Parts: sequence; C-alpha cells; structure tokens
Amino acid sequence: MLFQVQMDVRIPHDLDAATAQALKQAERTRAQSLQREGKWRHLWRHAGRYANTSVFDVGDAQELHDILSTLPLFPFMEIVVTPLCRHPSSIHQDDR
Amino acid sequence: MLFQVQMDVRIPHDLDAATAQALKQAERTRAQSLQREGKWRHLWRHAGRYANTSVFDVGDAQELHDILSTLPLFPFMEIVVTPLCRHPSSIHQDDR
Amino acid sequence: MLFQVQMDVRIPHDLDAATAQALKQAERTRAQSLQREGKWRHLWRHAGRYANTSVFDVGDAQELHDILSTLPLFPFMEIVVTPLCRHPSSIHQDDR
Amino acid sequence: MLFQVQMDVRIPHDLDAATAQALKQAERTRAQSLQREGKWRHLWRHAGRYANTSVFDVGDAQELHDILSTLPLFPFMEIVVTPLCRHPSSIHQDDR
Amino acid sequence: MLFQVQMDVRIPHDLDAATAQALKQAERTRAQSLQREGKWRHLWRHAGRYANTSVFDVGDAQELHDILSTLPLFPFMEIVVTPLCRHPSSIHQDDR
Amino acid sequence: MLFQVQMDVRIPHDLDAATAQALKQAERTRAQSLQREGKWRHLWRHAGRYANTSVFDVGDAQELHDILSTLPLFPFMEIVVTPLCRHPSSIHQDDR
Amino acid sequence: MLFQVQMDVRIPHDLDAATAQALKQAERTRAQSLQREGKWRHLWRHAGRYANTSVFDVGDAQELHDILSTLPLFPFMEIVVTPLCRHPSSIHQDDR
Amino acid sequence: MLFQVQMDVRIPHDLDAATAQALKQAERTRAQSLQREGKWRHLWRHAGRYANTSVFDVGDAQELHDILSTLPLFPFMEIVVTPLCRHPSSIHQDDR
Amino acid sequence: MLFQVQMDVRIPHDLDAATAQALKQAERTRAQSLQREGKWRHLWRHAGRYANTSVFDVGDAQELHDILSTLPLFPFMEIVVTPLCRHPSSIHQDDR
Amino acid sequence: MLFQVQMDVRIPHDLDAATAQALKQAERTRAQSLQREGKWRHLWRHAGRYANTSVFDVGDAQELHDILSTLPLFPFMEIVVTPLCRHPSSIHQDDR
Repeated sequence: MLFQVQMDVRIPHDLDAATAQALKQAERTRAQSLQREGKWRHLWRHAGRYANTSVFDVGDAQELHDILSTLPLFPFMEIVVTPLCRHPSSIHQDDR
Repeated sequence: MLFQVQMDVRIPHDLDAATAQALKQAERTRAQSLQREGKWRHLWRHAGRYANTSVFDVGDAQELHDILSTLPLFPFMEIVVTPLCRHPSSIHQDDR
Repeated sequence: MLFQVQMDVRIPHDLDAATAQALKQAERTRAQSLQREGKWRHLWRHAGRYANTSVFDVGDAQELHDILSTLPLFPFMEIVVTPLCRHPSSIHQDDR
Repeated sequence: MLFQVQMDVRIPHDLDAATAQALKQAERTRAQSLQREGKWRHLWRHAGRYANTSVFDVGDAQELHDILSTLPLFPFMEIVVTPLCRHPSSIHQDDR
Repeated sequence: MLFQVQMDVRIPHDLDAATAQALKQAERTRAQSLQREGKWRHLWRHAGRYANTSVFDVGDAQELHDILSTLPLFPFMEIVVTPLCRHPSSIHQDDR
Repeated sequence: MLFQVQMDVRIPHDLDAATAQALKQAERTRAQSLQREGKWRHLWRHAGRYANTSVFDVGDAQELHDILSTLPLFPFMEIVVTPLCRHPSSIHQDDR
Repeated sequence: MLFQVQMDVRIPHDLDAATAQALKQAERTRAQSLQREGKWRHLWRHAGRYANTSVFDVGDAQELHDILSTLPLFPFMEIVVTPLCRHPSSIHQDDR
Repeated sequence: MLFQVQMDVRIPHDLDAATAQALKQAERTRAQSLQREGKWRHLWRHAGRYANTSVFDVGDAQELHDILSTLPLFPFMEIVVTPLCRHPSSIHQDDR
Repeated sequence: MLFQVQMDVRIPHDLDAATAQALKQAERTRAQSLQREGKWRHLWRHAGRYANTSVFDVGDAQELHDILSTLPLFPFMEIVVTPLCRHPSSIHQDDR
Repeated sequence: MLFQVQMDVRIPHDLDAATAQALKQAERTRAQSLQREGKWRHLWRHAGRYANTSVFDVGDAQELHDILSTLPLFPFMEIVVTPLCRHPSSIHQDDR
C-alpha cells in the first residue's frame, strides 16, 4: 500500500551542532536502508527547501507509523501523510 | 526535470452532464497518451478525494505549462506545482 | 485498516429540490448498508453543522476510495482522510 | 455525551529528557486509567504523526475539561474539541 | 450545558427575494421563541457584519444540533461551535 | 458598550515556575475584581483548552485596552476582539 | 470612537449590469454623505484591488453597525472591523 | 517605483464564451501596450497555473491602481500587490 | 505617497528586561520624531492587542523601508504593508 | 530556466550577534557573486519587511537547490519557489 509523505525539517538553531550532525547521518543511513528494503520507494528533494516528498510502500498504516516515528529526525519534522491508490487513468496496474 | 503536481478537480454542479462526461473522457485519453510518452511519470489518486498527485518528467517549466494548461479539465483544477531534484540520501542517481 | 474520514456537506442552493432529496435518501441507504457490512464502523454528527466524523474499516486505501467516491453526495462533500493505527497507550489490541 | 478530541503533541527539544520521559509515562498511566473507567472511549494514533484522535464519553463539557486539563502532557498539546451527537443515518441508537 | 455558537450568514444573491424575506422572518420568530424558552441565552450582533455570537443553554449536544439544524437560515450559515464550562476565575457558580 | 474577547494563553515552558504561579494568581485576583466592578461581564472556559471567551462591558475601546493590556498574563495571550451590538432578533433591549 | 474597517467588494459577475451600476452610484452618494457628516473620517483605496481601508468616527458599535449594514453594497462586501484607541506614542491627544 | 503584482485569473465557467474570448484578447492588447510603454516591466507565467507574476514601473500607487483596475480581466482576478525597493545586496543601482 | 502599515509586536519573554525597556523607549522617541516630521501621519492602537495601524506619508517605497527597517523594535515586529491611493468616492482630493 | 524565489528571513534574537553579523556579510558576498555570474537575475527588497523577491536563472531545479541550500542564511529563511515560463502576452521572447 502506498502513502505519500511530505516532510519539512526544522532543526532548532540552538541544537548542539554535533548532535545535529549525528542525527542527520543516522537519518541518511536509515533512509538508505529503507530504500534498499523497498519500503521507501521514492525520495525527492523540494528544490530550495529543507523538505522532501516521499512515497512509502508498506503493508499498512501501522508499518508506516513504525517507520516514520523512529526516524532520527522525526522530532524535528512536520509530516503530512496522504494515502494513495490507483488512478483510473493510470496506464499501470501497479505504479510504484 | 521532475515536477510534482497536485491537482484538485472541482466540476461545477451546473455544468452540462454531457459536456462533463466528454471532458473527463478527453482528460483520460490525454493523460494516457502523456504517460505512454513518458512525460507523465506517475499518477496516483488521493484516497477518498477527487484529487491526484502526479510526477511529470519534462524538459523545462515551459513544457510543463504547455501540458497542464491544455488538459481538458484544466479550467476546473486547483493546481500546486513543486519542482523536485535529487535527494542526497536517495540510493538512486536518477529516481523517476 | 482504519481511516478517519471527516465529511462536510455543501449542497448548492440552486440544486433541484427533488434531486437533493433523492440524493440524501440514497446516501442514507448506502451509509446504512455499509455500516451493516462493518465497513463504516462509526458515524457521528458534528453538533450544529452539516458534517460528520466517520471511521472506516477497510482492506486498504483502494477500498476506501471505491466506497467514498461512489457515495451519492460525494460531489458535494469536502473530505479529509486520516489513516489511523494503534496508539501505544490504548488498552485495546484492536480498537474498532 | 461524546466529544471528539484531536491532540497534537509538541514537546520542546530543550525540555529535560528525564522530565519528558516521566511526563510521557504519567500520560500513559492516566490514559489507560481513563480508558478503563470508560471515559476515554477511543484512542487512535495518526499514522506518521505525534498526534491522536480520541473520543471521550463524559457527563458534560466540565468533566471533559477537568480530564483534559490535568493530563500530564496538556501544556504541550494543541487540542481541538468537537461535540458529537447521533447521526440520523447511523444504524446504532448509541454509537460509542 | 452552555455552547458558544458563531453564525456567519451568507445568503446567495440569486435567491428569490420573497423567499429570502420569508426565511429571515421565520428565523426571527424561531430565534425569539428559543430565547423565551431560555435555550438561546445570548444573541449579539457582530458590529458591521452579517454574523452573531450566541450562547445556547441546552441539555446536551444533541439538543443543540436539533435546534441549530432546523433554523430557517441554517443552509446559509457557516457555524462554529465551542463547548463552554465554568472558568476557575469566575465569580459566578453558574454564569448564564 | 460590549466587546467579545477571546484569549488563548500560551505560557512558555521555560518560564520560571514561581513567576508563572505568581502571574496566574495575580491574573485571577484582577479578573475577579473586574467582574465585581461589572466590567468583565462573562468569563467562560473553552472546554479542553487553555482559552476563554469573555464579554466586557466598558465605556469605549480605550477602556477595554487599558484593562486588557494590564492583565498580568497579557504578554502570553493571543487576543481576538469583536465589538458587539444589539441583534435585531434579540428579545432584550440590553443583553449583558 | 474610532473603528478601522476594511471592505473587500466582490460583485457577482451575473448580477444585472444596471443593478450593479445603480448600487455603485448609491454607494458613492451614501459614502460622500457620511464623510460630510464626519462619520466616515478616512477612505483610502487599496492600490490594485477593489478594496478600501476606512476609519469611522461614531458614538458606539451600534452606530457603526447601523451605518455599515445599510450601505448599498453591504451584501457584496467582506468586512473586517478593528476597534482603535489612542496609541501611547502618538503626539496627538485625538488623532482623527 | 516598482510594484510586484501577482494575478490569479478565475473566469467563471458560465461566462459567455464569446465574451470571455473578447476579454482575453483585449487583455493581451492592453498588456502589450503597457509593456511597450515601459510601465509593465516583467510578465511571467506561473508554470501550470492561470496566474502570473508581474513587475510594474510606475510613478506611484495611484498610477498602479489606474492601470490594474482598468484591465479587461480585472473583475476576475485575485491580485496581491507588494511594493519593492532596492535590496542592499543588489549589484544594480536600479534593477528594473 | 501613503502606505498603511500594520505592526504586531512580539517581544520574546526571555529578552533581557532592561534591553526591552530601552528598545521601547527608543521606539517611542523615534515614532514621535517621525510624526513631527509628518512622515508618520497616523498611529492608532488596536484595542486589546500589542499592535497598531499606521499611515505613512513618504516619497516612495524606499523611504518607507528605510524608516521601518531602522525602528528599534523592527526585529520583533510582524509587518503588513498596503499601498494606498485616492478612493473615487472620497470627498477629499488628498486625504492624509 | 527562471524561478521566482521569495525569502523571508527570521534570525533568532538569541543568536550570537557576531555570528549573525558574519552570516549577513557572507550572505551579501555570496549574493553579489551569484548576481555577477548571472544566476541571480533580480533581487528586490519588500518595502518594510526583512524579505525579498528574487529571480534565478539556472539550468534546472538541481542547480537552484544547490545555490539556495548553501546560502549562509538558508537555515533562517522561509522560502517559496515558483517555476516561471514565458507569458503568451509578453512582448519579449526571453524576459530575464
């Protein structure tokens, strides 16, 4: 099942720099692992903003929550979740 | 170049039913043609709403505008365009 | 899988009265059928407003969309969909 | 009487970690106690967000306020309250 | 139990003038009847706007809904409902 | 002259606890004094939120400002002011 | 007493042209009369928009409402009212 | 003096087609004339939307208003005006 | 040339009290000087809020910016600027 | 390819003054270098606000992001990006 997830990241300016750096590195490692597992299908940067549009391919909303809520930068993200389904005009039976 | 496009469709209730039907059919034909050309890369329905998230793969903003502004349902759409680029944590060089 | 759905109904004042009445009656019949099937788990009126909060229990987002987009009053609804999952402080394993 | 309550939790990043942990633990204990009493009828997590939709079953608005305003995480919540009543299309006389 | 209700009235300009006049007259009659019964405790005009703030004193949310949804101008109102309770700094045990 | 005032209180979490307590106590004392003078006609808590709806009965906007801007919690309030007048459907000549 | 009033005018495109013209003419006549009486102290156009900022000098909110609600274009205006008072840094005792 | 003007055009679907066409043609003629005069310095389409960002170079706000309020499509535009001035980091003394 | 300026002041609670006091005193001094010069034509307090509506009479947008951006409290203000011009229904040739 | 970029700068009041000064100086140096390269085509201050409207002329969205995300003040900016293209009523083939 597909979910569109928009993440806007706002790291407080007074967060310790080393902590911020470690969180970002851990975030990247986790994101790449989830991509390799096929859970995080697409990951695009919004040009000019510290934000992304992602598409997740998970079993259900619970699995989505377990993934998102354990991302290292989760406490600093504004997240919008949109459940997706097949569009009747799509030429794909299964557009992932 | 990739653009995320969100389209919310609002067809006025007093639009002639045959006209509405013809517009929807023409929209579908055009959408499928653009998908086959590889311009309209992804097309997902928002569950429960007359709306979609699309990803277009075009040469530039001009080509995107030429495509969107000639869609049959364009006069009845609210459209939000977000230019996308590669995310540094993506495992793909080119995620389309 | 559970989805919270908020529906705000706005019937245009110049819609034919008989048509409006027929749509409302068909909506009620469909809503009750879906409740009996267990798909439409909860249906609450917002006090003082032509709006409701509903909880749907469906297989996935596709089934939710198929249900909502065929409701007789769908063209006159503003709909907000929120995917739900288990809350870690819930005393229920499965709160439906 | 039923109230829908949406809670968005925003814990400041510079709150002492031990304090935050203690508040969350106390919140869970209180939430489970209120569920067992039947006051807090439903508690669902919003997938991907530090937020929930709850349904409270209380005598009146005063009791609702007394409950919500003494939750341990109350100072860090954005709360939206919607009074609910029976929907005329509900198949239940009393949907709790 | 007290509810604050804000009503913004928007009568479409193409509504038949006689119908509009009859609805306004019926609204006034109903409003005055509800005030005399003690259900509609306060009714204040917002200076310069076709809007009011009202305070209703009803048994529960169901009664509030039954009253509001049968007001003659209900189809043309935007309504916001806020459940009220006693303020701890009030000098009244029961401020109606 | 009547003004509706909505106050949302947001006390920063890093404000000294003793200071916060003193401010709240001073606020209560002042609020009760103004109620006894008849200036602060109504004071209702919004159920579930650190907010209130108040009705002030003052000579003019200047007196309203002098009162509100000297409330102990004024620096931590978001305030919305709505000037009220008699509603033509009110059964009262003077609804205070 | 001074009130700032912002008026945004939205005349429906399907309003009869002669009616619209008559309303605008009547509005102008009334506006100029109120200016000569000293009630409508300032009237400025927002550059590039069918909107104005006005300052009214009236006895109280009731008089303001009586004036605004009888303006010929009142049914087609979005109105925002802000009660004003003396600013402590003003060099005028009475800035009208 | 420079003003940034954003125009969103919303032509009602029930406007007579010939009228709409004539308005659009007149708008284009007027826009090109103003560009040749040097008043309308820049005119860019927003990709994918019936909207533009323009920069006007006029003597003052009055001249801007006289130009915008007489555009043939003015009654169907949402307009946002932003007065511009020199940016201290600009390498141009006069960036038009 | 006239500009309407709305200023909402938000002084952080953890700003040093002496600094805050000095800034406010400097702001008042500067505001009064600009009023005496005729640049700051009107200055009204919004009743009940730490906000004002001002009307500036300056040569152009550059002069407005130079004035506003050097106000002592500028870093703590939310500012909205609206360029004004003569209203065709004004009885004044030049309403300042 | 042209992008309109609006930047609102919000420097936290508790950022070290020397750091803030160094960031602003670095921002200016970088902005002027990009202007000289022809990437940053226009840079206008919004009168009365710490904000600007800019027009960038870059190869694609990736280059735009690489530029914006490395601006010294990027962590303190709210940024809105609008992709632009040729307006059919423009008298220029290429309006930069």
